This record gives sequence, C-alpha cells and structure tokens, in this order.
Amino acid sequence: MGDVGIVATRFYHWPGSLQLESGARLGPLTIAYETYGELNAAGDNAILVLHALTGSAHIAGRHSPDDRLPGWWDPLVGPGRALDTRRYFVVCANVLGSCYGTTGPASINPASGRSYGLDFPIITIRDMVRAQKILLDYLGVRHLVAAIGGSMGGMQVLEWGFLYPEMVGAIIPIATGGRTTPMQIAFNNVQREAIYADPDWQGGDYYGTPGPRRGLALARRIGTITYKSDPSWTMKFGRTVVDPGKYYRLEGQFEVESYLAYQGRKLVQRFDANAYLYLTKAIDLHDVSHRRGNYAEVWQDFPCSCLGIGIASDFLFPPYQVKEIVRLIKAGGGRARYRELNSPYGHDAFLIEFKQLEAIIKPYLAELRPDLSG
Amino acid sequence: MGDVGIVATRFYHWPGSLQLESGARLGPLTIAYETYGELNAAGDNAILVLHALTGSAHIAGRHSPDDRLPGWWDPLVGPGRALDTRRYFVVCANVLGSCYGTTGPASINPASGRSYGLDFPIITIRDMVRAQKILLDYLGVRHLVAAIGGSMGGMQVLEWGFLYPEMVGAIIPIATGGRTTPMQIAFNNVQREAIYADPDWQGGDYYGTPGPRRGLALARRIGTITYKSDPSWTMKFGRTVVDPGKYYRLEGQFEVESYLAYQGRKLVQRFDANAYLYLTKAIDLHDVSHRRGNYAEVWQDFPCSCLGIGIASDFLFPPYQVKEIVRLIKAGGGRARYRELNSPYGHDAFLIEFKQLEAIIKPYLAELRPDLSG
Repeated sequence: MGDVGIVATRFYHWPGSLQLESGARLGPLTIAYETYGELNAAGDNAILVLHALTGSAHIAGRHSPDDRLPGWWDPLVGPGRALDTRRYFVVCANVLGSCYGTTGPASINPASGRSYGLDFPIITIRDMVRAQKILLDYLGVRHLVAAIGGSMGGMQVLEWGFLYPEMVGAIIPIATGGRTTPMQIAFNNVQREAIYADPDWQGGDYYGTPGPRRGLALARRIGTITYKSDPSWTMKFGRTVVDPGKYYRLEGQFEVESYLAYQGRKLVQRFDANAYLYLTKAIDLHDVSHRRGNYAEVWQDFPCSCLGIGIASDFLFPPYQVKEIVRLIKAGGGRARYRELNSPYGHDAFLIEFKQLEAIIKPYLAELRPDLSG
Repeated sequence: MGDVGIVATRFYHWPGSLQLESGARLGPLTIAYETYGELNAAGDNAILVLHALTGSAHIAGRHSPDDRLPGWWDPLVGPGRALDTRRYFVVCANVLGSCYGTTGPASINPASGRSYGLDFPIITIRDMVRAQKILLDYLGVRHLVAAIGGSMGGMQVLEWGFLYPEMVGAIIPIATGGRTTPMQIAFNNVQREAIYADPDWQGGDYYGTPGPRRGLALARRIGTITYKSDPSWTMKFGRTVVDPGKYYRLEGQFEVESYLAYQGRKLVQRFDANAYLYLTKAIDLHDVSHRRGNYAEVWQDFPCSCLGIGIASDFLFPPYQVKEIVRLIKAGGGRARYRELNSPYGHDAFLIEFKQLEAIIKPYLAELRPDLSG
C-alpha cells in the first residue's frame, strides 16, 4: 500500500481537428493528462478516471515534494489501493473546455492569436469523450477495464458506454444521471448568471484583466451549497457567528458564510470563468438519449457492465438517478448493480468517502478481471 | 362559501419609538395591515396570519374589481373557508423592514428626510412580532385564537408563542424551524451577495435610481430554486428547450431557465432590494433560544397549543424541523401535534396546497374554540 509519489501532468498536442457534436470543428487540440502504473503489452489493463466540473487530470500523487495536497482522488490510486497501480494503467485527462492544460476558452485561438473567449464552440460531454478517445489511441490503450468518475465525470463514464462500448469493459458512474434534471440546470443557470452579471466579465473578453472575480466567486458559493447537505452544514458550522460584536449588523457573518466566501475566493485563484460557463453548459446538455431515441429505451442491450454508485444525502444528484440507470440496464438485458455511499456529506461524498468507495470498487474490479488480480 | 370581495390595505401610524432587539430604537412606525371579518365584543376571536419573505398584508380578496389575482392565501380566507370570516377576525400586517407599507429601508428616515437605506437598523423576527402587537392593541384584539403562517411567517408564529403566550391560544407554524439552519443561511447569503455585487446597488443608496435590478433578480432566481423541489421542476419543465435552434449556444435556454428569469424580473417590479437584505438577515438571526437558553429546553412548559405542519418535499425547510418542535413541546409537557402536506411542490406547497391546509386547519380551529364554531 502506498502513494504514487511525484507525478507530472503531460500534454498531448493533437494536430487534427475534431468534429464536435454541434457540427463545429475544433483543433488542433492540446490534451493534458496524467497516468499512473504501466500499460501492459496487450494494452488492456487501463482504467480511465473522469473528473468533475472544476477538476483536473491530477488525481494522485504530488507535482513536487512541497505540494500541500495530493491529487483529488489520491487515496484511491496507488499500489494496493482501489485503482491498484501495480495492476492497472490509470489515466485521467483534463476535459475539453476546461482550463487545466486541455484546450478551452482561455486557450489561444489560432485564427486570431488571442484567447478564444466566447468564440470557443459549445462543448458537450460526448465531445469530451471523443477527445479522450484520441488520447487513449495515442497512448496505445486498446481496452478499458473500466471508466469511472463522479458528477460530470459520471456523465462522461456513461457516454463512454454509448460511444465506445466495444472498448469499455465496465462503467462506474457515481453521483450522476443519464440526463441532467431541470433543477440541476436551474442551479447551473444562476451560477452562470452570477458570472454574466459581473461587469468585469466584459462579454467573455476579459483575458489580460483580472476578470469576473466576484461573479465567479458567487457562482462557486452557490455551487458549494449544492455539493453539501443540510446535516453536513449543521455538523460543521451550526449557528456559530464569526464576530458576536457584529451580530446585529448586515455585515455580520455566521461561520458558514465565511466558509462560502473562502470557497469562492479559492476557486477564483484557480479557475477560468469562461471555462465555468462552457462546462456547466455541457452538463446541462447532457442527455444520453439526445439524438438516440427514447430515454427508457436507449439502455436496451447495454453492452458494458455497470456498477452505479449513488449518495444517500446528495440533493443535487439524488440517488434515484443512478438507481434508474441500473434498473433500466437490467430491464434491457444488461448487467448492472447499484451501491450507495452512506454518507452525510452530500454530493461531495465521492471526493470524501474513500474507504466506502474502495470497499465497493476494489472487489468489483477484481471480479471483472480476475486475470489482473493477485 | 365565498371570497371576501373587495378589500383595502390600511395603515396604522404609531407615533412611538420601538426598542428593537439590537438595542436601537425605531419610530415613528407605519404598519400596513388588512382585516377580514369582525372582531367580537370580547376581542377574542382574532386569527393573526404572518407572511413570508416577499409577502404583504394582502392575504385575501382583491383591491379592485380589475385585480388579476386575489391575495396570497385567498382560498383559505372567507365565509366558510378555513379561516372563516363569519367567525373569526382575520388580521395580517406587513412586517417591519418590508416594503409593502410598513416601515422599512425604503421609508423616509425622519432624521434625514431621505430613505433609510443602510441606516435602517437590523430587524429581527421578535421585532416584527412586537410591531404586530402594537397593531393588535390598537385594533382592540385581546386574544388570538391562533397565529398562523409559513416560512418566515412561521418564525413569527413561534415568537408569538414565546413573547406573548398569554395572548395566543394556539400557534400553527408551517414549513419553518425554531432556528435557521446553516444551509438556509447559506442560501440567504448568496442571495444577498447577488445584490451586493450589483454596481447599481450603490451601497444601498440607490433610491431615485433604478437600483440593483439584475442583482435582485438573481437573488430571486436562486430563491425560486429553493422554494420548489426536484420532482416539481421535472413535472413542470422536463428538459424542454425554448429555441431548438439555439441548442448548441451559450445563450440557448431550457424552459426552466426562462422561468427563473421571469421570476427574477417579476420580483424586481414589486420588491425593494434593501428590504430583501434586511428580511433575509432577520431570517438568519431567527433562533427562539437566542438569549433564552438551551434550544431543547426553551420548549419546556410551552403554554400554547401547537399544530406544526411540515412539507414532505421541502428541502429548504425540511419537515424534521417542525417535527422536532412538536416533539420538544410534547416532551416539555405541552400540547402539540404534527401534520404533513403530502405535496411534490416543495417549500412553496404552503402557498399551493389549499385543500390539504383547509382539511388540517379547519377542524383544529373548531376544536380550539367550539364556542366559535357553528
């Protein structure tokens, strides 16, 4: 058992031009990625991890010995861990439209020599998956033991099952849905509006300026509320006030407010506002039945095994969505099972409940590929 | 059975000065109110209705025959209705700090001759109740059969039970809590921040200008999400798009987004942004145990009967809060019972499920005061 140590993000520069779902073309592309473990000679021991809205390719290890924190799924990736790097070749790529090295709205548009801004085309979950496929081909990956991820990552997991079923043994969608609900769209809408309403957003053409810091911070405050749960807020903060001397003042704050403000400020330092707009839009457009037929029927004869994982306290992506996917796959003749994280932490539980995730994922992977298990 | 017909909001100008919970003084006060039915000679057949965040005193009837809509609780108030105006004298007053006729931040500050703006003092739920008491004294009300209201109205209902128990026969708190939770505070925080972040807010000194329309509209969009429920959004809008031709554009909208924008615009036409700040702050400060002792213990020997009503699908004010109040009152030797609205509409159900409310409230009132029942 151990961690993966010091790792580096690498960059694949693909000279081609990708036909997007919208019909637009985008290219050349840069895809930022990290890998852990070794690809076997057959190219069939890979596990693809898909990240959520503000995530990056950096899931495990540290970029330098001084790094304060390891990657965002570190306890699950390493020798002896759930995604055992002695057996599997683990890959994660930053999604198209993001700002952690893969081509996105902040990237330089070769047509203008300036950042794309709003000239960046609309990206969908399917486009993200197609870009990942280009990377896996380049890396020599011929088969995925599993594709796994939570939230927006889970949407990509599902689309892997629809777009490249012959390449994927199993999908492990976590805290996600087969199509975004209107309530999820509503929460994304107000977060985008917070950015649009900031005069410093400047119609998306803010590169070279500080940009819409207050708007992006407000978006993150709102998002943060939806990633937690009522009991988790109460456990963590209760009704504690920051400064009792300001109790009867408008500017007085409860601890929970100070925490939200902190989360907002932190995201502004690390994320691009336009990427936030494009990625939340991609989430809104997510619907595995779009242009494929009836939602209940598209799961008929689903070719990949599915381990769906829900979170009991998640009100943003309520567990009924994953349960429904599992039910529809089984009803359609496929192999699927459902497991639930028993956690008070809400949507964020897939970034917190590592022990439960390991207990669910590790035996499932071993069952899928006994030949890779020790 | 019938409605109350044409009604008018009246205004009580109180020349005194109210000592607020914060220690500040506020006065003279204007209190806007409406009444329906007749006060009896004993002055003991009154029912006080308390309104929520953006509500007004206008609960029933119409102000003119051309009014498109009646008051916000109209189906519950009138001859033969749950709050039967043949038996009860029904009163509702606009709360202190609001903008529907009662003194609030938009009112003229006698000290400056200009709107108070941020010179308005912090108002608490207890202050609202004390102002209502001044009005009831003026009207000759000596006893309330019941105090009833939902959400912020329910908070006032509870404070009536603590501040003037000798005057209140029963309290009927709906979809509320004995103390605001950190998640509720968090949602209020982001709504206030949406207003603060609007440059047109101008530090609250925007009177005579259009004011922070976009910020207030965003606050309302956020609030609107919290007043509904996941199933209600799905039933009402699903994933329908406004214009399929804009599907692959950032500015493309799902119906749910168009609805949110509409709700935002509508509120801007009728509500004052500073009042929104002060009232959400009053909600945050709500805690019946504040300066009274331990939360579990303050309900000991609670003197009023309590009918607590929760809403199954309410994620903003989850029903466990009202259930807890009922449990604590009973544990403390008092009389309390719990009923639940079986509704998919979330927090808003107390403004929608009139039949269920009538079926719960009418027999309870008859039981409380058989002498007033027919």
